[in-house]
Amino acid sequence: MHTFSEQAQGVIELARFASDKGWLPATSGNLSILVERNPLLFAITRSGADKQRLTEQDVLLVDADMQVQGESSYRPSAETTVHVALYDKLSCGSILHVHTVYNNLISELFARQGYVEIAHHELLKALGHWEEDASVRIPIVPNWADLHQLGQAVADAAKPDVPAVLVRAHGVYAFGDTPDAARRHLEAVEFLCEYVYRLELIRNAGFVSP
Amino acid sequence: MHTFSEQAQGVIELARFASDKGWLPATSGNLSILVERNPLLFAITRSGADKQRLTEQDVLLVDADMQVQGESSYRPSAETTVHVALYDKLSCGSILHVHTVYNNLISELFARQGYVEIAHHELLKALGHWEEDASVRIPIVPNWADLHQLGQAVADAAKPDVPAVLVRAHGVYAFGDTPDAARRHLEAVEFLCEYVYRLELIRNAGFVSP
Amino acid sequence: MHTFSEQAQGVIELARFASDKGWLPATSGNLSILVERNPLLFAITRSGADKQRLTEQDVLLVDADMQVQGESSYRPSAETTVHVALYDKLSCGSILHVHTVYNNLISELFARQGYVEIAHHELLKALGHWEEDASVRIPIVPNWADLHQLGQAVADAAKPDVPAVLVRAHGVYAFGDTPDAARRHLEAVEFLCEYVYRLELIRNAGFVSP
Amino acid sequence: MHTFSEQAQGVIELARFASDKGWLPATSGNLSILVERNPLLFAITRSGADKQRLTEQDVLLVDADMQVQGESSYRPSAETTVHVALYDKLSCGSILHVHTVYNNLISELFARQGYVEIAHHELLKALGHWEEDASVRIPIVPNWADLHQLGQAVADAAKPDVPAVLVRAHGVYAFGDTPDAARRHLEAVEFLCEYVYRLELIRNAGFVSP
Repeated sequence: MHTFSEQAQGVIELARFASDKGWLPATSGNLSILVERNPLLFAITRSGADKQRLTEQDVLLVDADMQVQGESSYRPSAETTVHVALYDKLSCGSILHVHTVYNNLISELFARQGYVEIAHHELLKALGHWEEDASVRIPIVPNWADLHQLGQAVADAAKPDVPAVLVRAHGVYAFGDTPDAARRHLEAVEFLCEYVYRLELIRNAGFVSP
Repeated sequence: MHTFSEQAQGVIELARFASDKGWLPATSGNLSILVERNPLLFAITRSGADKQRLTEQDVLLVDADMQVQGESSYRPSAETTVHVALYDKLSCGSILHVHTVYNNLISELFARQGYVEIAHHELLKALGHWEEDASVRIPIVPNWADLHQLGQAVADAAKPDVPAVLVRAHGVYAFGDTPDAARRHLEAVEFLCEYVYRLELIRNAGFVSP
Repeated sequence: MHTFSEQAQGVIELARFASDKGWLPATSGNLSILVERNPLLFAITRSGADKQRLTEQDVLLVDADMQVQGESSYRPSAETTVHVALYDKLSCGSILHVHTVYNNLISELFARQGYVEIAHHELLKALGHWEEDASVRIPIVPNWADLHQLGQAVADAAKPDVPAVLVRAHGVYAFGDTPDAARRHLEAVEFLCEYVYRLELIRNAGFVSP
Repeated sequence: MHTFSEQAQGVIELARFASDKGWLPATSGNLSILVERNPLLFAITRSGADKQRLTEQDVLLVDADMQVQGESSYRPSAETTVHVALYDKLSCGSILHVHTVYNNLISELFARQGYVEIAHHELLKALGHWEEDASVRIPIVPNWADLHQLGQAVADAAKPDVPAVLVRAHGVYAFGDTPDAARRHLEAVEFLCEYVYRLELIRNAGFVSP
């Protein structure tokens, strides 16, 4: 197990990775890494921080009641509720929540059916599906204003074999056993969201495969 | 209150931020930070500067009559008129004007109705709207050739609770109490313009949500 | 007037600028800066150089007959013919030739009529058109396999008040009195090509302005 | 001929180049450079490495039976089978396999006919086709789950005069005599995939050239 200080450094690296890609616009998004599972303690970005310029002071140690451990004038992200609910349900070690145009589009376009299904695509392997003819349903939940309700909805929708949940017109929660796994899952989901959008677009525009 | 020198440094940072994203193409755009409200003094980029390579000499201290304070062979941006009009009407502390393909598209596509309406989207929080079922109308004004008229039109359209105004086939003015707030508002508006464009595109192409 | 050494340094800076934007893929494109007008001498990238890793050895001093001045085992870009023809016709001091997806799309989509017309757009100012209701026609020429014919076609199409010529399914030549002016013109043309493509796309998909 | 150490350094440079462009998402893709042709030895990225952070330990020396030479706890990429098959059939010196949204889209949209044809485009020169009115068919093969079968399919489809093979909903294999040539071919193929997608999109949306 790692110390808070090590995990805080990991959160800063994740923030650099995701903000370099433009996935944390307008101070949105939040990123966490587990410190202890029992009782639950994790390192998470504070509310309102610009992830493009994150420092150690912007990472807080938080418990299952969202109480900040140690001294800090900052509050944890309001969506820490979702992190608590996910750590509670799954055995994951890191959770990444980002907003991108493509995950927003997919979450909006497929909201009614509650999931987007992706089949016959190589990057499903990066989500842990190596079986031939793999087909994965990424869940989509409503964007509940009540953040405890949102946390519950995301945790309820989360399945161990699909490491991501989309929130309608909001963003994605991707998770994994380690920060590297969470990052790999997130990259795969973002790629697939853009791919599905562009494929649906050209087919709806009338393209028929020759 | 900060000195001109400090605010000029802030303008250079804003220029690096926005030009790194490609939002200030072809020496376009202008950025300002308030120095004194009464009488009005603010730091603003000079006319024609390449924002990718901005230096201290490219930032001018300007008053309400657009007169440059101190010695400089440079003129302030011609659109300084809009900054004056906005500082005059609102209590904001920083104004960012950038040109992007997506804000240009939205400003053109929705010009006739005079606004673009965005509802049910998480990033409205970044524009200051935390209420459930928030709906925001970002105003769109004509691209008046007379820059005093443009300044008046932007200021007339600007509302304290919507921190941005689009100018048709031209760009966006985003503002905030601080440079960080203006930057957050700008990032949110750009995200939303791209989102609305892509959502309208796929729906007009015929996509029906399953 | 500047020395070859100074202009070669300028070419390296232009290469970094344009390759950072991804505008010089697959060793394509060529960039030049005038050294002397009479007799004509200019600094230009060598054939086949990867512009992402350009060094001084990759910039050659060339005359009106495309003869390399000084010792070098490299040949100038084959499209040096176009640079010679443009320096011959116009009074410009720098010429940038890049390949992008958007300038390629516009050049292909509007090839038949021989130009793309852009009106009522703020960035026309960056092309030197400050008049109200400015409208600019950027010429499009066929992609002649014979490079002397291509040079002639580009020079014939080039007009002093429109600082760019598109070549069908090939790329753009943008020029200006100085390297900075050429760069500004190029950035404006690239922006406008993407804007026109996306505007045509959504309108053809059926979008009607509310 | 170069040493393994030199070629491993070359692989790291290729990984930086391709991951900077976002072409190796979610630890996907694999890159190799030939060390000896007879018997076959080549440097290749290990399985599961994040190409954005590749180090020397992540590059393995592998033979025709996919056996790692020297000590390493890592396995080579499972798709090393494809590299072996390609080195076996062609005289190439470097092979790059990347996943991008556009090569995935083209591979899916044109899978049924087994190739995508590109004609009348300047960047065909970067693929080695300088003839006037050049037309190139890039082969598309099914994404066989059995990786030996995939290797055979890619090698069977590969033609000396078209330095790339697309794998359906998976990615592209681009190759060349040298790492620089492979890189140039890859950049050209990626450009052309995006170009073809966008051109098909706007035409299917109804755009008719004026």
